[in-house]
Amino acid sequence: MLVGKIIGTVTATRKDEALVGAKLLVTQPLDMEGNAKDHPIVAVDTVGAGVGETVLYVSGSVAPFAVRKKDVPVDAAIVGIIDRIDLQKP
Amino acid sequence: MLVGKIIGTVTATRKDEALVGAKLLVTQPLDMEGNAKDHPIVAVDTVGAGVGETVLYVSGSVAPFAVRKKDVPVDAAIVGIIDRIDLQKP
Amino acid sequence: MLVGKIIGTVTATRKDEALVGAKLLVTQPLDMEGNAKDHPIVAVDTVGAGVGETVLYVSGSVAPFAVRKKDVPVDAAIVGIIDRIDLQKP
Amino acid sequence: MLVGKIIGTVTATRKDEALVGAKLLVTQPLDMEGNAKDHPIVAVDTVGAGVGETVLYVSGSVAPFAVRKKDVPVDAAIVGIIDRIDLQKP
Amino acid sequence: MLVGKIIGTVTATRKDEALVGAKLLVTQPLDMEGNAKDHPIVAVDTVGAGVGETVLYVSGSVAPFAVRKKDVPVDAAIVGIIDRIDLQKP
Repeated sequence: MLVGKIIGTVTATRKDEALVGAKLLVTQPLDMEGNAKDHPIVAVDTVGAGVGETVLYVSGSVAPFAVRKKDVPVDAAIVGIIDRIDLQKP
Repeated sequence: MLVGKIIGTVTATRKDEALVGAKLLVTQPLDMEGNAKDHPIVAVDTVGAGVGETVLYVSGSVAPFAVRKKDVPVDAAIVGIIDRIDLQKP
Repeated sequence: MLVGKIIGTVTATRKDEALVGAKLLVTQPLDMEGNAKDHPIVAVDTVGAGVGETVLYVSGSVAPFAVRKKDVPVDAAIVGIIDRIDLQKP
Repeated sequence: MLVGKIIGTVTATRKDEALVGAKLLVTQPLDMEGNAKDHPIVAVDTVGAGVGETVLYVSGSVAPFAVRKKDVPVDAAIVGIIDRIDLQKP
Repeated sequence: MLVGKIIGTVTATRKDEALVGAKLLVTQPLDMEGNAKDHPIVAVDTVGAGVGETVLYVSGSVAPFAVRKKDVPVDAAIVGIIDRIDLQKP
């Protein structure tokens, strides 16, 4: 899983019918210090995440498990709102 | 999911029989500001996307879900036409 | 899917029994202008591709679908011979 | 599989219900000499790994197999505590 | 599939029970000329590969197919010992 920050939303009227009603959030991957890394991706939300929140998200073919519908064509899903990251002092 | 722009088409007469009739579109990945990033890929279309349109696409083993046929060897599929991306001001 | 050029063959006598008889082709990924990008990979062929041909190939866990055998450990498969790529003038 | 070092923990109260009770560990990928490479990821633990330990972890859609629950949206899982890496002298 | 060279072994006493008895080999990815590229990974062996041998390996969720056990959390598996790579002269 990766850590990301929700930075926006995507609107798509014409879409795969399995995605109707899905909340599509622009998610900026972060490193563990909270700095942006790589380009943002679009993830489906099922935990009620909002813009500005720091989240945990999955990528790939496990993403449909978060949607609780079989055979949904999504490859990224938000699975948690992060409260705290505790890093060991090196 | 990633955002991309349809920039062309691929024609392949000899192909896996599960791909017969599939529309194969050259898709340029974009960042959230609409700039090209990375190399284009080829995605199967099921939402009626056309050249010049900005789309949402999935990669990997969830792509066959968009085709609604089991066991189709496709690893990228267009799942929506994007109307709008709203980004939070940083 | 990605575009590639067949540049060689791999011979492996000792191999997973599900791969016996499989044609293993060295495939150089290309960008849409036909230039080599990244390192070559090895893909299984099921469409009769030969050295020098430009092909469409899939990666990941959809590759076994091209082989039409379940549970075959292959992660790249050639699914078409490309006749033509038409790119929109920017 | 990759080698990593556990460097922290992630706490997420609001999360996918399949993740309730899951131990989420920040894992720094290492090269075979033990140097950090790439950015840390978050992996679910099922072997009792602790901060500071060197582990073996899997990525992608095989990660749920480690959790022994079907359809869990996790894409990285710790599958072993490494005792020793023996490298051949070049 | 990718080409690699076996350069070592990994020992992990505490591990996922599905991995008990698995041979875990440190595998250095090679380009088609035999030069090292990227960082080594750890792959499970089922074809009797040994240190120093050049192998073909798969990555991702097809790796369990090589192990012939369902639901094993492995994401890389050696599927052949390479005898020869024949490259077309450019």
